[in-house]
Amino acid sequence: VIIDMHAHIVPERFPAANGRPSAARWPVMDHFEPGRANVMIDGKNFRTVRDVNWNVEKRLAEMDAHGATAEAISPMPELLSYWFTPGDGRDFARYVNEYVKGMVDQAPARLFGLGMVPLQDPDLACRELENVKSLGLLGVMIGSNILGKSLGVPELADFFVTADRLGLAVFVHALHPTMAGRFVTPAMTGSIGFPTDTGISLASLIAGGTAAKAPTLRIAFSHGGGTFPAILPRFGGTWNEAPAPEGWDPHAIARRFYYDTLVYDARAIRYLVDMIGPKQLMIGSDYPYQAPEQPADTSVRSLGLPADVTDDITWHNCFRFLGIPEPAV
Amino acid sequence: VIIDMHAHIVPERFPAANGRPSAARWPVMDHFEPGRANVMIDGKNFRTVRDVNWNVEKRLAEMDAHGATAEAISPMPELLSYWFTPGDGRDFARYVNEYVKGMVDQAPARLFGLGMVPLQDPDLACRELENVKSLGLLGVMIGSNILGKSLGVPELADFFVTADRLGLAVFVHALHPTMAGRFVTPAMTGSIGFPTDTGISLASLIAGGTAAKAPTLRIAFSHGGGTFPAILPRFGGTWNEAPAPEGWDPHAIARRFYYDTLVYDARAIRYLVDMIGPKQLMIGSDYPYQAPEQPADTSVRSLGLPADVTDDITWHNCFRFLGIPEPAV
Repeated sequence: VIIDMHAHIVPERFPAANGRPSAARWPVMDHFEPGRANVMIDGKNFRTVRDVNWNVEKRLAEMDAHGATAEAISPMPELLSYWFTPGDGRDFARYVNEYVKGMVDQAPARLFGLGMVPLQDPDLACRELENVKSLGLLGVMIGSNILGKSLGVPELADFFVTADRLGLAVFVHALHPTMAGRFVTPAMTGSIGFPTDTGISLASLIAGGTAAKAPTLRIAFSHGGGTFPAILPRFGGTWNEAPAPEGWDPHAIARRFYYDTLVYDARAIRYLVDMIGPKQLMIGSDYPYQAPEQPADTSVRSLGLPADVTDDITWHNCFRFLGIPEPAV
Repeated sequence: VIIDMHAHIVPERFPAANGRPSAARWPVMDHFEPGRANVMIDGKNFRTVRDVNWNVEKRLAEMDAHGATAEAISPMPELLSYWFTPGDGRDFARYVNEYVKGMVDQAPARLFGLGMVPLQDPDLACRELENVKSLGLLGVMIGSNILGKSLGVPELADFFVTADRLGLAVFVHALHPTMAGRFVTPAMTGSIGFPTDTGISLASLIAGGTAAKAPTLRIAFSHGGGTFPAILPRFGGTWNEAPAPEGWDPHAIARRFYYDTLVYDARAIRYLVDMIGPKQLMIGSDYPYQAPEQPADTSVRSLGLPADVTDDITWHNCFRFLGIPEPAV
């Protein structure tokens, strides 16, 4: 059994922007042929997507073909729309959240829903978390930076504290890396920028004290936490986890966090197992976008871990992250 | 035997800046007590350093105590001074280079010298490489970015091509990370910024095509290449090194580069061995600054690699990187 915790959706259509202040970047679905649509943003095709993004029947059939028993579904990251006005962001998030819930309701034993909130306005985002919970979603996906700010900045701390209090899971997904001036090709944005941006924000949550303020928060990071696990030892400041002055121990917090296995190499997954531990890892594939590994547990299984450890990664850990009982399978 | 390839020096004193345009940031040594000095830059103490930075006799004694048979010495990174005018940068680099050479000449079987060039002016830097070679240094240390630019930008390509042609080694050291706006504490600059900056620049050398233009360049990266080896699989674009479209294979180039072992954890070194291969790894300690692991091969030896593989990492690889025969020991 596999639950894929890193899987995205796009609604079949969006409400019209009409005269909204954020109309320019408000997405429009262009269904240019049966089964495929362009997500038009700011007059450009952001991505051509297939109907498995919104059609649950087709999605379940493809999940069967890929060996995915279940998925935690979240919006396509570009839909996070932190560049909207707060009001538009709230309305858009509510629409997307209800769409996610609608998909979950069609397959409640196989799809588990993560929504979104307008973090461009942290106070509003905290209030919207209540609606996310009322709606029955299990948590939210957020970007690795909010309009350029690391997640660990003080003004975002209440968001994480509120999610912790409400028992909502938080999935941090790479978004619009801020170090674009350092990339020499467009491809570096996704290949280098995504994991770099995630890694920096993860570190900021620990360094800035936010993680300590939300001690029971269930939070996961895309792409295996990006660059963070690699530099965790240096972040700790001593060799081989020797005690650091004044109790500084980022390893302890890092091992409270969750990470997907979307690191593209069995050796990199092995490093996560060794450094973070197998209780915090979950299968993530980025389905239905990047050419995902199929079945999504192929590299994990290639490690030859004990069966119960593999089962933790492919199944059990994700339900702990989501904060729900495991469904019967 | 150990050769430490990541070890720095500071001259006992610098020539006076007099009326130079770069006088404000020109360093001044304040020998405030016997055996210790503050490196004053821009009116502030950049770092308090001990006399092992310039006194070869004391340095050799401490190397003996630490089990370091030999070192490749390079300037303290802040001395790279890319913020000087080109002319001041050239004069300062020449002074430092001659100082490094003077230290090497006092212990030519144990100290191997890397200098610096004023990369704020790439054409001038190329010309100065000739002087570095004439002086008898084995290569240069450079920053992980040059005034905010990634090393893989086109205007720096000639520098790497020239170093390749002259047979000079290049050691890339983290310097002034550009993503400072993402750090929520000052400590993040060194702990997160250094390896992040190095990782991005390393990737830029491959993505931008510079590495292909300098196919026999011997180039090494501090802190185990920073974040790069962790995200190399994603950079490659396929799972487990499956062939990528159009021959894109950053793994092949990454395995031509050299990396120090300054990653603060045996598991992280193990990952480098598995991902990059043991022929490209070299002991690096950052002596005499950060509290280094002593002996500097402790974590490498803890891996239990075959003796010949361990010897590659602790000794042989570094002389291949430096491009010189191994000294008798």
